[in-house]
Amino acid sequence: MLITDSGGKRTFRFHLSEYRERLYHTKKKMQEKGMDVLLITDPANMNYLTGYDAWTFYVGQIVVVSVDEEEPMWIGRDQDVNGAHITAWLNEKNIIPCPEAYYHSDQKHPMDFFAKLVHLMGKSNRTIGVEMDMYYFTATTYEALKRALPNATLKNANALVNWVRLVKSDQEIEYMRKAATLAENAMSVGIEQIDAGVRENEVVADVYHELIAGTDKFGGDYPAVAPLIPSGDDTSALHVTWSDRKFQANDFAIIKLAGCFSRYHAPLSRTIAIGETPEKIKEAGKRCVEGLHVALGTIKPGATCEEVEAAWRRSAEKHGVLKDTFLGYSVGSNYPPDWGSHTANLRRGDRTVLKPNMTFHMIPRLWIGDLGIEVSETLRVTENKCETLTEFERRLFVK
Amino acid sequence: MLITDSGGKRTFRFHLSEYRERLYHTKKKMQEKGMDVLLITDPANMNYLTGYDAWTFYVGQIVVVSVDEEEPMWIGRDQDVNGAHITAWLNEKNIIPCPEAYYHSDQKHPMDFFAKLVHLMGKSNRTIGVEMDMYYFTATTYEALKRALPNATLKNANALVNWVRLVKSDQEIEYMRKAATLAENAMSVGIEQIDAGVRENEVVADVYHELIAGTDKFGGDYPAVAPLIPSGDDTSALHVTWSDRKFQANDFAIIKLAGCFSRYHAPLSRTIAIGETPEKIKEAGKRCVEGLHVALGTIKPGATCEEVEAAWRRSAEKHGVLKDTFLGYSVGSNYPPDWGSHTANLRRGDRTVLKPNMTFHMIPRLWIGDLGIEVSETLRVTENKCETLTEFERRLFVK
Repeated sequence: MLITDSGGKRTFRFHLSEYRERLYHTKKKMQEKGMDVLLITDPANMNYLTGYDAWTFYVGQIVVVSVDEEEPMWIGRDQDVNGAHITAWLNEKNIIPCPEAYYHSDQKHPMDFFAKLVHLMGKSNRTIGVEMDMYYFTATTYEALKRALPNATLKNANALVNWVRLVKSDQEIEYMRKAATLAENAMSVGIEQIDAGVRENEVVADVYHELIAGTDKFGGDYPAVAPLIPSGDDTSALHVTWSDRKFQANDFAIIKLAGCFSRYHAPLSRTIAIGETPEKIKEAGKRCVEGLHVALGTIKPGATCEEVEAAWRRSAEKHGVLKDTFLGYSVGSNYPPDWGSHTANLRRGDRTVLKPNMTFHMIPRLWIGDLGIEVSETLRVTENKCETLTEFERRLFVK
Repeated sequence: MLITDSGGKRTFRFHLSEYRERLYHTKKKMQEKGMDVLLITDPANMNYLTGYDAWTFYVGQIVVVSVDEEEPMWIGRDQDVNGAHITAWLNEKNIIPCPEAYYHSDQKHPMDFFAKLVHLMGKSNRTIGVEMDMYYFTATTYEALKRALPNATLKNANALVNWVRLVKSDQEIEYMRKAATLAENAMSVGIEQIDAGVRENEVVADVYHELIAGTDKFGGDYPAVAPLIPSGDDTSALHVTWSDRKFQANDFAIIKLAGCFSRYHAPLSRTIAIGETPEKIKEAGKRCVEGLHVALGTIKPGATCEEVEAAWRRSAEKHGVLKDTFLGYSVGSNYPPDWGSHTANLRRGDRTVLKPNMTFHMIPRLWIGDLGIEVSETLRVTENKCETLTEFERRLFVK
């Protein structure tokens, strides 16, 4: 989504100077890795560098960054070009339509056309970076590129732009704060609505409504993942989506959602027990909150991701209810199917050093047999420690 | 989502016999193409053959079909295995966890593990089909497979299962009818809410709520694409998502949405003019509906996809307001980012012969300068002509 100014007119999300700075850092990383050209297919990376924002990532589209060209180039489906004119800051000459005949065809592939343009730019024998493991860079796309540009040297540029995105600007943090407000409001609605006899889908409907209706001051964008409310046995299956089953007395449920503002996410997770709650579940809820506090307390510039996870693990292992070693992940702007940023993770082996304005979703999880309990926060690394962007009571809720 | 029976217990979506029939037809197609093994990464295809349904397609997961094994095998992330136990009909021994260390790692890739199992099954030197151009089969996934199984012959099995899915069973049609009811109800809400001074995001919030809250009898699933409501200049950019801009008097807007029941979609699109409507827009609305009727009238078993599009084009070209030659696409079960089925399309050059129980989203579009008008329906080919699953007044709405 774009932002509207006080007069109701659409404006770009960021100042042009910020887009130029992003581009500068991207080109610098390209040069470090010896790349002349970067072909970007990840929609969040396309958006980060150009502002382009539309639900078009289900078809071939690309942003081309060259170290020796001032502006990137957007190439996408003919029918989507107006979307680029409206949302991207690029010069009109750098927005190129790919003809309809390249789409949904057995004979042609959008990459055939994209490669043709790289050739026309005189860059077909250069070193070209591609995002090898991104959702929208399929095996066929890669094969088509290799066939069309046999003299190019292809290099893996997976997550190159994602790493540039790791430290957020103040404006990005501002958008994440708005997303956090949306997440808190939606969580309140979810916890209020959930009860024995209510269908799971009804609670999700209310949560979705709150996420998108937003506040008087700003509206919500679609989160990259649908709200998840596993309950009963499904809390053993964290990513199973809702059904129209009714919540039962003695169920317990996890609400996992993210507020989203202008593609920036603030995820939030809480566990809710309905009716009588076994003592061991109450106890696990307390331990989970305690571990969250311990782990939050270790975050500061200079600490590493794995140190934060180790602190959580030490706290949780005392109670013998830990299953995995994945405590959280960098979060920010993204598109379906994932709101995670695919860079730094709070887990064993990740030695990324924390810096101010990095943002994470920290999601400690404890297990009672097969059933999981979660209490999470979205946080920002500050100048000397951390603050949570989401502010929501940290406890096991009981209805 | 799973279905709940009258006692509120979860049940599988389809009888086991239907899953077995799907598997039979898939194996037959594999044999025709000389494939011994098929590695499925498309979540709708995984779901079609096994019932597996969860928001886990953002990480590596796979279904393995072998012509000489009775059951498919599901392999996915360790933490998601319980989701497979709950939603898939497979024997427990055919549900295999892939260890956490293979995920979000620079050193290991989930495909390394999947390939290892193919090797253990004694099939590493066989002919293996892969879905080369599916969103979740990345270039890295393909490279890892080639490296791990150097003696296998890899063949492109893109859309192989999608083509098996083209003709729907009566049970699938039943689910699409439910999805159509959800779409109609949500469209009513959208048209009712849209008005000058209302923010776009508020209308989307109400539409989303209706899609998921569903009816007293059944709840809604998440559609694979968010509802889109381009308005004003954005109707020239069909896939730009909403903002918190307020609708203005004299805007016109398109509401494009899909009801979704158990992953089966029924898309529906209508155009709404707010306040004074220029005569030429009213006229275009009439022409669009007229063309829709003409095209629907040509659908019957034995006709080809391109004949249907040609009838629409002849009707529309009289008025000189046609831009493209893409009238619609096969639709049914799917996951983000697309609800289309990537098989038969109602467009020039597509000679697919229509058969009973094929289903399409027919979406004629006319242009007034840069602004688009749409009036669509989801339809089923019947024994001798067609019926629309969505039933919604076909006209330009004026508020």
